[in-house]
Amino acid sequence: MKLDQQRFSTQTNGRNTYNITQDIEQIIAESGIQTGLCHLFIHHTSASLIITENADPDVRRDLETIFSRLAPDGDPEYLHILEGIDDMSGHVRSILTQTEITIPVSNARSALGTWQGVFLWEHRTGQFQRHITVTVTGE
Amino acid sequence: MKLDQQRFSTQTNGRNTYNITQDIEQIIAESGIQTGLCHLFIHHTSASLIITENADPDVRRDLETIFSRLAPDGDPEYLHILEGIDDMSGHVRSILTQTEITIPVSNARSALGTWQGVFLWEHRTGQFQRHITVTVTGE
Amino acid sequence: MKLDQQRFSTQTNGRNTYNITQDIEQIIAESGIQTGLCHLFIHHTSASLIITENADPDVRRDLETIFSRLAPDGDPEYLHILEGIDDMSGHVRSILTQTEITIPVSNARSALGTWQGVFLWEHRTGQFQRHITVTVTGE
Repeated sequence: MKLDQQRFSTQTNGRNTYNITQDIEQIIAESGIQTGLCHLFIHHTSASLIITENADPDVRRDLETIFSRLAPDGDPEYLHILEGIDDMSGHVRSILTQTEITIPVSNARSALGTWQGVFLWEHRTGQFQRHITVTVTGE
Repeated sequence: MKLDQQRFSTQTNGRNTYNITQDIEQIIAESGIQTGLCHLFIHHTSASLIITENADPDVRRDLETIFSRLAPDGDPEYLHILEGIDDMSGHVRSILTQTEITIPVSNARSALGTWQGVFLWEHRTGQFQRHITVTVTGE
Repeated sequence: MKLDQQRFSTQTNGRNTYNITQDIEQIIAESGIQTGLCHLFIHHTSASLIITENADPDVRRDLETIFSRLAPDGDPEYLHILEGIDDMSGHVRSILTQTEITIPVSNARSALGTWQGVFLWEHRTGQFQRHITVTVTGE
């Protein structure tokens, strides 16, 4: 078994989902690994990694609708409010989703299902440089 | 370190939890790995993998109660409605739970706690063939 | 690639978050692994592992506020009530968060972001001995 670890960055521009599936495919291809696992880790607490439906963008809009109820911006009970009304809600959304994801590698590609895409979900309304470490292990 | 990757399928028959702990134990046993990690990945966006209490089935019924509130079927704000009222709620439930899980392998078995079982949680009300890739790595 | 697997325990004393970042750093250091992955697994279904903001303790207080709404103690619809009002809510909180987390290892340390800490989130109100298995793999 061998291991390849790389880091890449994505510039976000407000609360939204950003498709990073191709970034991951490229890193898997560069690793030369045929069969194994690809681990993704985002180094932040108010942006997430999610795997969800990749065909209809309404799915991600509906996720936004539900998450704005589960983790409201500017909730009157929040104590952590220094950085604005999207700060604490961003931390809650991070906890309700994923900071890290592992995907199988098969035939030198990610073994995602037909309808699965990998997205960075930015929870803050401003612009951020988000860093992701990708570790590919296998044969 | 060595690696074994297999795929198996489970036929679901409506929204429910399906215990897949024994399928996983069998794949770990076949891998011959004594110490390491077992990674499970479900190739779908409206069915999940969860680890929860394995003794009292009421626990999974109560999870269903709470999730039917957090991710309501047929919510009037959903835009993604083509496949029925359980479609978008299935995607939300998938995001709130896990698409992939890693479990330690110790003494050639999963190192699950006494009260932990691994379940496929089908979120759609119809019948589906669900595919899971299992990757075991270790010594 | 090599592998090191260890187990450690944390005594909890009521519903709260417990910072376990240093326990993990120590196990990574002992493994001698420079580059790879560190997997954490908690062997329980009513305590979780989370990565969240490590600077302001109000963040974890606000997480508690939101989770007490999402997974209420003593909800009148719960069927699983034998062990008290914090039992089923603990299982829901476990499902909404993580039983296991993988963190990259770089330069012989966890590659956590500046503001990321690893916490055990005890969901029960009593005292418990919680067991965590740590598996470090890499080079």
